[in-house]
Amino acid sequence: MFGTLVTLGSGLLGASVLSSVKARGLARRALTWDIRPENSAFCVERGWADAAPGTAEEAVREADLVVIATPADTVGELAQRIAPHLRRGALVTDVGSTKGHAARLAHAAMPAHAFYVGAHPMAGSEKNGPGAANADLFEGRACFVTRLPGRTDPAAAERIGAFWAALGARVVESDPDEHDEIVAHVSHLPHAAAVALACVMAARPEAWRDCAGGGLRDTTRVAGGDVAIWRAILMENRHEVTRAVGDFERELAALREALESRDDRALAEILERGKVWRDGLRA
Amino acid sequence: MFGTLVTLGSGLLGASVLSSVKARGLARRALTWDIRPENSAFCVERGWADAAPGTAEEAVREADLVVIATPADTVGELAQRIAPHLRRGALVTDVGSTKGHAARLAHAAMPAHAFYVGAHPMAGSEKNGPGAANADLFEGRACFVTRLPGRTDPAAAERIGAFWAALGARVVESDPDEHDEIVAHVSHLPHAAAVALACVMAARPEAWRDCAGGGLRDTTRVAGGDVAIWRAILMENRHEVTRAVGDFERELAALREALESRDDRALAEILERGKVWRDGLRA
Repeated sequence: MFGTLVTLGSGLLGASVLSSVKARGLARRALTWDIRPENSAFCVERGWADAAPGTAEEAVREADLVVIATPADTVGELAQRIAPHLRRGALVTDVGSTKGHAARLAHAAMPAHAFYVGAHPMAGSEKNGPGAANADLFEGRACFVTRLPGRTDPAAAERIGAFWAALGARVVESDPDEHDEIVAHVSHLPHAAAVALACVMAARPEAWRDCAGGGLRDTTRVAGGDVAIWRAILMENRHEVTRAVGDFERELAALREALESRDDRALAEILERGKVWRDGLRA
Repeated sequence: MFGTLVTLGSGLLGASVLSSVKARGLARRALTWDIRPENSAFCVERGWADAAPGTAEEAVREADLVVIATPADTVGELAQRIAPHLRRGALVTDVGSTKGHAARLAHAAMPAHAFYVGAHPMAGSEKNGPGAANADLFEGRACFVTRLPGRTDPAAAERIGAFWAALGARVVESDPDEHDEIVAHVSHLPHAAAVALACVMAARPEAWRDCAGGGLRDTTRVAGGDVAIWRAILMENRHEVTRAVGDFERELAALREALESRDDRALAEILERGKVWRDGLRA
């Protein structure tokens, strides 16, 4: 499908793209670069990439498709750095968790002969690094492909959508701002909730940990995620996340007030509303 | 180990006790009663119980061990109902999610020749009914065995602890009030958080559901739990739950304020505190 594919970033997501592309035969040649050379070297050792050039600029020179898989707050800057080195017709996509700001920077950076199309596969893990990579990471997962009105080249967006679909993802089209609002709710708010819950527990006796059932374990799972990555994501998308967390605080206060006033009916209504939504989530 | 074992309640927990007792050969004879006769009949059909008497009073007459496995707010009342029918030396335990109030009622109800020892296995499912029963439900899970100071018979507490251990649980001893404070945090607060999160999502476009990754799914899993059961649990334990939810709201507000003031350091500190706690949770 592609001649030369390059991932910038060889961590969990970059390495999963490489191994998935390899397993599915989607590129003739694959290169990877990472700010940590040991990550790229790992991908070459595993046979997921053919080589690991020393710089991002060098890596993209022959690229037909560049996948930027670095932390969300570095995507715009990296797009600017590689722009002068892109060949005619090159496509650039990314896996960044926020899109409004980064997509505008990346679009602004592109030369007329290359095309950026933002993407965000809803896949990840609380584990990091290429050692946690998985060729089926994107299988069945939603993947946003974002079009900035008046800027995104439609043919390029089609090809990027087809690329993510070939990795097994369900493509969801949206504009970058709508994307940020949606992920603030379906990804960043759950992260904030899990972290705040873990912080409450951190202030309690350590022995309580061993009394935890599956509920606490599942509800806090994502709080184990990388601090630097999540700080960048939440800060980049802070306007939407702040709004979503505020709404969450209001729902919690309503539940607490139902308990305080012993209002059985109000409590049941809240529990019912939550259950109906959860029961409708696809398995 | 026991002659006749009786479960009052033949739902998920009662039926799991029966099937586990059967699989491990812990009783010579097992009976079960449920307010829904079809639940008890299911357990008899599966061979987990030998018979299903028509009333709770009749069921307990020959019992050496009674396991009350009905919703948390009915345990005290049921203990009062069966008390006049218990034989000499009978042991009574339960699986109730709250202990402070119910344990005092149950103790007060017991005749001098029978012994109540509260228990609470930290096991369950978002599914209900005997069809979801599992003989290994308690395997490796914590099970509180509560002693009300000055009331609980030590020998009875030892035997009840040994019973839950024989079902595979890790026994955690506590007094009933301490139990309620711990479970408010490790079980009821995660439930409240999951429900409130699901309620935020319920107010958003339905199509957003399909964009959910594993994080939202796991964080909200327990919100699928039975409404009547959880209303009873949360209301019974409302003093402790209210306090825990209040602390959770304060942690969320701190996170939101770090975002609003673009305080990278404060945000990282919160994420780090949550991660350290989560990473220490047993796998």
